[in-house]
Amino acid sequence: MSDPLRLGIAGLGTVGTGVVRIVRQKANLLAERAGRPVTISAVSARTRDKDRGVSLATYDWEDDPVALARRDDVDVLVELMGGSDGPAKAATEAAIAAGKDVVTANKAMLAHHGQALAEAAEAAGRVIRFEAAVAGGIPVVKALTEGLAGNEMTRVMGVMNGTCNYILTRMQSAGLPYETVFEEAQQLGYLEADPQLDVGGIDAGHKLALLAAIAYGTRVDFEAVELEGIERITIEDIRHAADMGFRIKLLGVAQMTGRGLEQRMSPCLVPAESPLGQLEGGTNMVVLEGDQVEQIVLRGPGAGEGPTASAVMGDVMDIARGARLPTFGTPAAALAAAAPARTATPAPYYLRMALDDKPGALAKVAAELGEAGVSIDRMRQYRHDDSTAPVLIVTHKTTRGAIESALAAMERLDVVAGTPVALRIEQV
Amino acid sequence: MSDPLRLGIAGLGTVGTGVVRIVRQKANLLAERAGRPVTISAVSARTRDKDRGVSLATYDWEDDPVALARRDDVDVLVELMGGSDGPAKAATEAAIAAGKDVVTANKAMLAHHGQALAEAAEAAGRVIRFEAAVAGGIPVVKALTEGLAGNEMTRVMGVMNGTCNYILTRMQSAGLPYETVFEEAQQLGYLEADPQLDVGGIDAGHKLALLAAIAYGTRVDFEAVELEGIERITIEDIRHAADMGFRIKLLGVAQMTGRGLEQRMSPCLVPAESPLGQLEGGTNMVVLEGDQVEQIVLRGPGAGEGPTASAVMGDVMDIARGARLPTFGTPAAALAAAAPARTATPAPYYLRMALDDKPGALAKVAAELGEAGVSIDRMRQYRHDDSTAPVLIVTHKTTRGAIESALAAMERLDVVAGTPVALRIEQV
Repeated sequence: MSDPLRLGIAGLGTVGTGVVRIVRQKANLLAERAGRPVTISAVSARTRDKDRGVSLATYDWEDDPVALARRDDVDVLVELMGGSDGPAKAATEAAIAAGKDVVTANKAMLAHHGQALAEAAEAAGRVIRFEAAVAGGIPVVKALTEGLAGNEMTRVMGVMNGTCNYILTRMQSAGLPYETVFEEAQQLGYLEADPQLDVGGIDAGHKLALLAAIAYGTRVDFEAVELEGIERITIEDIRHAADMGFRIKLLGVAQMTGRGLEQRMSPCLVPAESPLGQLEGGTNMVVLEGDQVEQIVLRGPGAGEGPTASAVMGDVMDIARGARLPTFGTPAAALAAAAPARTATPAPYYLRMALDDKPGALAKVAAELGEAGVSIDRMRQYRHDDSTAPVLIVTHKTTRGAIESALAAMERLDVVAGTPVALRIEQV
Repeated sequence: MSDPLRLGIAGLGTVGTGVVRIVRQKANLLAERAGRPVTISAVSARTRDKDRGVSLATYDWEDDPVALARRDDVDVLVELMGGSDGPAKAATEAAIAAGKDVVTANKAMLAHHGQALAEAAEAAGRVIRFEAAVAGGIPVVKALTEGLAGNEMTRVMGVMNGTCNYILTRMQSAGLPYETVFEEAQQLGYLEADPQLDVGGIDAGHKLALLAAIAYGTRVDFEAVELEGIERITIEDIRHAADMGFRIKLLGVAQMTGRGLEQRMSPCLVPAESPLGQLEGGTNMVVLEGDQVEQIVLRGPGAGEGPTASAVMGDVMDIARGARLPTFGTPAAALAAAAPARTATPAPYYLRMALDDKPGALAKVAAELGEAGVSIDRMRQYRHDDSTAPVLIVTHKTTRGAIESALAAMERLDVVAGTPVALRIEQV
């Protein structure tokens, strides 16, 4: 049996503890599968004296993750601290400079610095693996980079923030407004310290940017992701969408078009009976569409100790077994700068607005839609008690530009109360 | 850029032609992703003069696949001929003996000779990859062997014969009897030349045996798979199951228990609203359950030129990139002989029988069930026009042994007409 693969684990939160537990409890299984033992040399975290439910006594302790990364007895830095910059980035750079491989769950760091880190790693002959950064326990990075390597990808989609999906499905099942469920989620500890990372779509946007880079061989470009959070989704939107056979999901879509790469993370309507529509609670789902494979759907837990540690260990085992791939599948130097494209792929849209309850109001709205070149597929006006009537419109396929023109014109109408909401209906 | 990886393709049916097409049309993309060109040196098939819609003029032709496998200018034999023995096995053995790697879609060959071939390959320092042999385009072998390598698997399930799933879902949607849909499927060319491979569960059983070997580190043991086909499923079973919130699927389950490895491929009831229950038509689905990752569900096309060629190319790209794993994930010498266990994991069962329409008939059946220790959860007797009444029973969790005792006793009763049917309700 070959030399052991020696890990240095930086970050001992839920996931780090889970990785320690797997390495301790499954030593024989891992050694048999990898053809060599997998061991831990040293660990690092902010707080040393804390009962984590797993013994760390046999590992050296480093207060400084950079020192951990540079240790002679560490072959792989397992970076589980998080944060796009700071100690995580410093330790990752130190590891690469010292000739170590890196396994990380850090989507923010790679979304912002992925290209530079990949170039540094490849120049040093080292690998960076990040399965745990995208969609938790689902081995989607592997599926896309390796399993589907014979495909030109045509579209990549995903529900990749479990907290948002929990909020949206809980609103629907319990009939509760956004604010109430948001507070519930906060009390349950489901939300990041900065909730905007979740409900603003930022966390999921990081993941989408990573998948897009792999899928299309482009440089990761998080800045180009069109981000829209779920804060404006009302219980009425969810009910009305359900009435028409849809579900609302915070859906990421990356699509290469003739104009460039479209990347968007936004609340969308999807058919209720589709796999995406049926996804409940904190579960994640990624849909991979390629010119050969047609469509692959992957579903699994998007967070949690076991699932995320499982993804980290998949990467560790790949390194132990000698698999060595460029960070984003294609060598970093060959990754093209993506030409970012504003969303222009046509789709039907869902529009919700409040109209003053007086004759001719609807006609004015319909006229503005016609003026903008948007045609109506279905329209519903709901019963109402106050002076404005909720009106829903599902359009035929149209462009986002046309919808935005129509919305701008409507806001100028004296019969439309408040700001209309427009949600894309993604064809899945 | 490194030396090209040179393929020899044996078998030019749908999948082989698809592989040739990808290698020709995506040469630049593949070279960029693999860091080296992927080329074809020579091809082989039964018939040379046949328009396959793709030019073979630049490749050498070999009538004999064994000669192809031995060529100096072939690094990888791509075996797409099929058949558990004969030319496929001879060419695979010849390739390994000549120091070549093998990529195959041949589930029958590996289900029967996987252990011997894996041992030969590993002794020669060669790899055998078989992603295309299981669940078509879904990269499930990779997910299980690599992505989930940090897990002890607890259960692996799958709907892996698209033809059977097509037949069962078409029976339901069109309300047609088995025989009619079977003939339709035959006319559409969906069935193997020997239909028993499909509807008898043999093809899907081969796939299950391969997944079980990977999941549990055991020697592939197809003989131990409990096989039951879909031929006895009636349109009434499908309707009654639907009435009670279930769908009938030809479901494979591999589960390690205290008594040994249970492997079964049989028609089961699954909840209609579960991912397995919602699977329509020829699509495949595999459910992977591990102690860390909880549950991963993979869904995609189970057959067809593009999807199957995609799986073959995933394996080819792995080899081009230098990934070298044992055939079943664990070194062949370390694979344990599975202790085969007859299904004993308790489950609820669905029972369908025809009872003579006379007083006391149901009481006799209920008494026999009680005698066998089987308790009833739900029972329905349907309206009927003839002298026997269709009766459905859903039991509480019980063992297969208890169900078989009860069925044997019922067959001896003078009030039960014909043979009762028992289907397991798999908890998914």
